[in-house]
Amino acid sequence: MINTDVNLLEMGKRAKVASRQLAKASSGQKNNALVAIAEALEEQREYILKENALDMADGEQNGLTDALLDRLNLQKRLDGIISDVRSVATLADPVGEVIDERTMPNGLVISRQRTPIGVFGVIYEARPNVTVDVVALAIKSGNAAILRGGKETLRSNTALITVMRDALVAQGFPADAIQYINSTDRKYVGELLKLHEYVDIIVPRGGAGLHRFCLENSTIPVITGGIGICHLYVEPSADFEQALAIIHNSKTHRPSVCNALDTVLVHESIAAQFLPQVVEHLGKDGVAFRADERALPYLRDYDGIEPAGPDDFSTEWMALICGLKVVDTLDEAIDHIEEHSMGHSDGILTYDAESATRFLNEVDSSAVFWNASTRFNDGGQFGLGAELAVSTQKLHARGPMALEGMTTYKWVVRGEGQTRQ
Amino acid sequence: MINTDVNLLEMGKRAKVASRQLAKASSGQKNNALVAIAEALEEQREYILKENALDMADGEQNGLTDALLDRLNLQKRLDGIISDVRSVATLADPVGEVIDERTMPNGLVISRQRTPIGVFGVIYEARPNVTVDVVALAIKSGNAAILRGGKETLRSNTALITVMRDALVAQGFPADAIQYINSTDRKYVGELLKLHEYVDIIVPRGGAGLHRFCLENSTIPVITGGIGICHLYVEPSADFEQALAIIHNSKTHRPSVCNALDTVLVHESIAAQFLPQVVEHLGKDGVAFRADERALPYLRDYDGIEPAGPDDFSTEWMALICGLKVVDTLDEAIDHIEEHSMGHSDGILTYDAESATRFLNEVDSSAVFWNASTRFNDGGQFGLGAELAVSTQKLHARGPMALEGMTTYKWVVRGEGQTRQ
Repeated sequence: MINTDVNLLEMGKRAKVASRQLAKASSGQKNNALVAIAEALEEQREYILKENALDMADGEQNGLTDALLDRLNLQKRLDGIISDVRSVATLADPVGEVIDERTMPNGLVISRQRTPIGVFGVIYEARPNVTVDVVALAIKSGNAAILRGGKETLRSNTALITVMRDALVAQGFPADAIQYINSTDRKYVGELLKLHEYVDIIVPRGGAGLHRFCLENSTIPVITGGIGICHLYVEPSADFEQALAIIHNSKTHRPSVCNALDTVLVHESIAAQFLPQVVEHLGKDGVAFRADERALPYLRDYDGIEPAGPDDFSTEWMALICGLKVVDTLDEAIDHIEEHSMGHSDGILTYDAESATRFLNEVDSSAVFWNASTRFNDGGQFGLGAELAVSTQKLHARGPMALEGMTTYKWVVRGEGQTRQ
Repeated sequence: MINTDVNLLEMGKRAKVASRQLAKASSGQKNNALVAIAEALEEQREYILKENALDMADGEQNGLTDALLDRLNLQKRLDGIISDVRSVATLADPVGEVIDERTMPNGLVISRQRTPIGVFGVIYEARPNVTVDVVALAIKSGNAAILRGGKETLRSNTALITVMRDALVAQGFPADAIQYINSTDRKYVGELLKLHEYVDIIVPRGGAGLHRFCLENSTIPVITGGIGICHLYVEPSADFEQALAIIHNSKTHRPSVCNALDTVLVHESIAAQFLPQVVEHLGKDGVAFRADERALPYLRDYDGIEPAGPDDFSTEWMALICGLKVVDTLDEAIDHIEEHSMGHSDGILTYDAESATRFLNEVDSSAVFWNASTRFNDGGQFGLGAELAVSTQKLHARGPMALEGMTTYKWVVRGEGQTRQ
């Protein structure tokens, strides 16, 4: 089952051919294929979980952390994964959608129509759920995909891919629509990143190192993201109770993800009153703090406060740690965010509409929030139904990238013999 | 005036800072700046043309071709260039436009708003008009730009940039919004392509070699394009007179550009009748032909016909040469286009709506045409008012890339204290 003789060039060529067939598939055909995949995953549950258990056993033997083992474990997760596939089948098909249409003075009717991008290269870590997510989204958006998951999940992924490909083929789709790099050799990642003749877009899902590696080595456009140093700025007009709830939710709801809060900026006129409340409200749930020199004096009586070190405001904490900083003005808050944010998720807590408008306009992040938790930066929460990635680069797709972001458009020009003067 | 000590890192940093100021500028401020630029170019006409004359004299001495000298010459072109700047001022400002807005069940109001991308890196050949075009489009879309033009136009470009920067500064804009790499040393192109910390997008304008160089060496997303192997497929139901006019226009209107026709595909049932008409109609304007083995027998009586060589259908002619090929079916035509097109401009000439629909859906090019000339693939012709480039890649912008393509979006989330469950 484990193929160590991978030929990326061949995989790319076959993916390109398959992508043309996928692009022609109707919404009904694609939805039927997704339902067939969901049914096949249910029917083959025993086989999938058996392979997953082997990966888990190896992982334990190799000393994977509990967090990694938890991500790897399909036992509790398979039902949810299958139900997500069925959800994707119910989403609107973006392919064929007409973005705009105009009739020119010479009578030409010009429109832009959404089409699939072609072939996705998706590189991810030891999360077998991503394997199924990506396949469902790729099929729905009419794209082929070449996947490469973490080495710790090779057997789980091989099982999932085998089951899904069989289901696709039974529905008349080409098996090559979905291909998996069946090898743990990292050289194939490098080869995939150079396949620009056949692969149209690279989506890395993982940590900063993976994103940087793709950016620096790919000749194919890369959707980078996955890193967020997220800020909330609290103004005097904020509703303190609401602000505390938003800060608490942004920081503690899931501290290890990229839209979790890293730094709270507080206007100096409320610092004495508000900062101790933040420390009390979050401290009781185990949050520790890194306070700048202007915040520290207000927090002398509390435990868990350390002076912020030189790099602390440039750190994505991924943990129950929160930076605290006092600023004099909205401009100072915006400047701090521009300097330290990774352009992921930043917000303002205020009831001053003018400040909020300036903040929303001037802070250049994939999502900007007014009186809401940064944790909402997510395809599901934004009503997209699913997401392939959260992009923090600015080209093509920004923020949650879902079915629409998995398409491009072409210009369709209908004439009656027009020639250019 | 000619600075040979270029510091790209500093230029990038200053461009990034300037881009934040530009992003905040109102439509009125930006339009005023464009009008001021147009006026300054008029007032400084003598200085600009004097510098341009020096470039021209050098060019003649260095044996530049007439075509290159013509592109370099501002004498006849400056009025048109200035009038284009005034036109860009009249176009709608894309920045701030709300793409979509929805209210989620939890009350969050979520919209996407267009924002400038940030910093453009534009690399182009010896065309000083591009210098002014890019500046006008960048200012209008709220972006900073670092430009690098062909070495033959260094003095013309330096003059244009100096005049435009002075006009910008007088209007309260930062001079660093527009920077020019004042050196002919090619190493700076390589350095620009790695400035991903400060430059958001690279737009090459030039030949295939430049595009490939950018693609292979850039760590910044590149908008590639500029190459087209363009096809028209003629079906039996075509109006022959109309088809001949479209083929003539697509081939001869401006043979050296990327949306000019390269290959005519003809259905076998009309080949005997239609191919001689093509040869007569285009031959009298000097077009020569490369015919495949199935087309040749119909063209024995004509001059200027050569058998198509093995690479002829993969050649962008850029000249009065046209490939001719007979196909049996629409599928064969689509397959040929998929194999040979560069995804630029391809069309079908037919009055069979079913064939046309299949062609428009299945041919994966930046623009697909039904009974119209391929020469229409152009920002002006598509009603965009101007264009920065014609993209043949699929990410972000496809086909003519104009003001909208020079923006990205951010998600703007307005709440009243919502937290994620």
